[in-house]
Amino acid sequence: MVKKRVGKQSVQFEEPPIIAGYASVAGKKESQGPQGKYYDIASDTDLFEGNNWEEAESRMQLMAANTALEKASIKSEDIDYIVAGDLLGQLQATSFGIKQLEIPLFGVYGACSTMGESLALSAMLIDGDYADKVVCLTSSHFATAEKQFRFPLGYGNQRPLSATTTVTGSGALVITSQRDNKYDSEKTQLIVSGITTGKVVDYGIKDPNNMGAAMAPAAFDLICRHAKDFDTDFSDYDSIITGDLGMVGCNILYDMLKTENISIENIHMDCGMHIYDRKKQDAHSGGSGCGCAAITLCGPVLKKMMDKAWRKVLFIPTGALMSTVSFHEGNTIPGIAHGVLIEAK
Amino acid sequence: MVKKRVGKQSVQFEEPPIIAGYASVAGKKESQGPQGKYYDIASDTDLFEGNNWEEAESRMQLMAANTALEKASIKSEDIDYIVAGDLLGQLQATSFGIKQLEIPLFGVYGACSTMGESLALSAMLIDGDYADKVVCLTSSHFATAEKQFRFPLGYGNQRPLSATTTVTGSGALVITSQRDNKYDSEKTQLIVSGITTGKVVDYGIKDPNNMGAAMAPAAFDLICRHAKDFDTDFSDYDSIITGDLGMVGCNILYDMLKTENISIENIHMDCGMHIYDRKKQDAHSGGSGCGCAAITLCGPVLKKMMDKAWRKVLFIPTGALMSTVSFHEGNTIPGIAHGVLIEAK
Repeated sequence: MVKKRVGKQSVQFEEPPIIAGYASVAGKKESQGPQGKYYDIASDTDLFEGNNWEEAESRMQLMAANTALEKASIKSEDIDYIVAGDLLGQLQATSFGIKQLEIPLFGVYGACSTMGESLALSAMLIDGDYADKVVCLTSSHFATAEKQFRFPLGYGNQRPLSATTTVTGSGALVITSQRDNKYDSEKTQLIVSGITTGKVVDYGIKDPNNMGAAMAPAAFDLICRHAKDFDTDFSDYDSIITGDLGMVGCNILYDMLKTENISIENIHMDCGMHIYDRKKQDAHSGGSGCGCAAITLCGPVLKKMMDKAWRKVLFIPTGALMSTVSFHEGNTIPGIAHGVLIEAK
Repeated sequence: MVKKRVGKQSVQFEEPPIIAGYASVAGKKESQGPQGKYYDIASDTDLFEGNNWEEAESRMQLMAANTALEKASIKSEDIDYIVAGDLLGQLQATSFGIKQLEIPLFGVYGACSTMGESLALSAMLIDGDYADKVVCLTSSHFATAEKQFRFPLGYGNQRPLSATTTVTGSGALVITSQRDNKYDSEKTQLIVSGITTGKVVDYGIKDPNNMGAAMAPAAFDLICRHAKDFDTDFSDYDSIITGDLGMVGCNILYDMLKTENISIENIHMDCGMHIYDRKKQDAHSGGSGCGCAAITLCGPVLKKMMDKAWRKVLFIPTGALMSTVSFHEGNTIPGIAHGVLIEAK
């Protein structure tokens, strides 16, 4: 039997699944941001012709999935599974967004780490020969998240400056097997070469306006685990990409990593800190939400990899596992992170 | 390469993963019901020593997982992954319930079909050699679900007679590989021999007090698909077990199956219709929730299989993919079903 598992929480693929297509759909503010030119669909409205914000988010998911399929030249009927989720209660955006695709669904939830979870499960489904083609999909929407976690926009509620801005966006990837490898060897090929799956990590942070601090320990745990499992000091990694730790969370992460003699500062990128222009756009503490990591991955990151400016990155979206109910009950905010190793060949 | 996939949406395992342990934790009303004697923990309170209902639900999940591990004689540190979810927004019961187990987590959501999704993914993780031991876990709680989907219990709100009662209960299974087969061949061995993964199916039902009607088309779709993929007329199946269709949903399912010349009436069991005593217990239209199918599977069903009264069953928990937001926006209730083929050898 081929040894696929490495260490305690990781898998290294012998014949890594291929990223055959990917797409990003972004809202108005995100499209006006510094990464706007990298999104496949940069919208000038957040409503996406929906009748309400939730419908808008569902429509983004469908647009992202369809665009990724188109870019991969694969029809939806040839997809074996879709592994998808979002931030809303009972995965509303996904349930309504993808139903017309009529693809067997595994609904997943990992808060803002969802794209990492989706990629990990999809890669194993393909590598294990349970599927040839899988769609990974997630989204978030500023207005649906404000309604879900804070107040509906119509209330005109003010958010503290320390709060992050939920990204309006959806990212989709089409993952395929090397078994039906019809890809041009002249072209750059993106592969999912490994995964490290995270545990729930809870350091007792209770402030929902400081979710970076709540998620940093999960990212720390994941990075240490990945380093051990893959026996790496990250010297051959071009980038380590976290989801939405923000300034406070990043500094906590660096400090924690120092205790393990790991330094990632020079190759680290936090999606939430790159999505908006901090001087020109009023986005408070930066971006967050499933869509934040998803459109950054399916926008600027994979573009850089296609250009071979980056050849090996560890993508670690992080999630804060809280709900309004858990918050009101005075609970802590447990964090989780999922690591996906992506390489350009 | 060994052919594992059968038909369009199914997998048949060559070396089926083993159910090494399973456990059910049930609330007061469920424990007083006709299946009470089959639950591992039949509680006389719904609070499980928690400070609130959500904490109670989390504690049930932890108790179910620990009991299943104990029955399988496996330590939690030897578990590779936990695949778990619940009905609450942002999977609150799971996030807080399992964090102290410190096991890599894949959070899943399929409404009341969650145990089917969890079993399907876990079986593939094991069969594909990504894991040796996986815990599948789900729960629901009457009081947390009423608060989430209807009104907090303190309001004293009256539910219509057509509404189902969300089951207070949690079920857990420990799935292991045949690779480390230390099990006694003299004893009955329970195996997951196949899976059929469902799509989102939406026939336009909008009445949240008639969720059986909303889910029946998903169960119909799954049963037809399973029959085609496994080329079976179900004549060698001892039981087809749906989650919580209720009386109305079951009749719709039978009628729909007639159009495909499939008859399952004589081997069909709906967990929701068996969990409460319809004459003595005021449970309105029967049981529902992730816990309904989970404790019925991990209680009376697997007991019957251990006794070899049943040797082959198709377990099909069904989920209604709705949220209060989608309902208030006038949306339909899409359904989903996941099929898991369980055999006693």
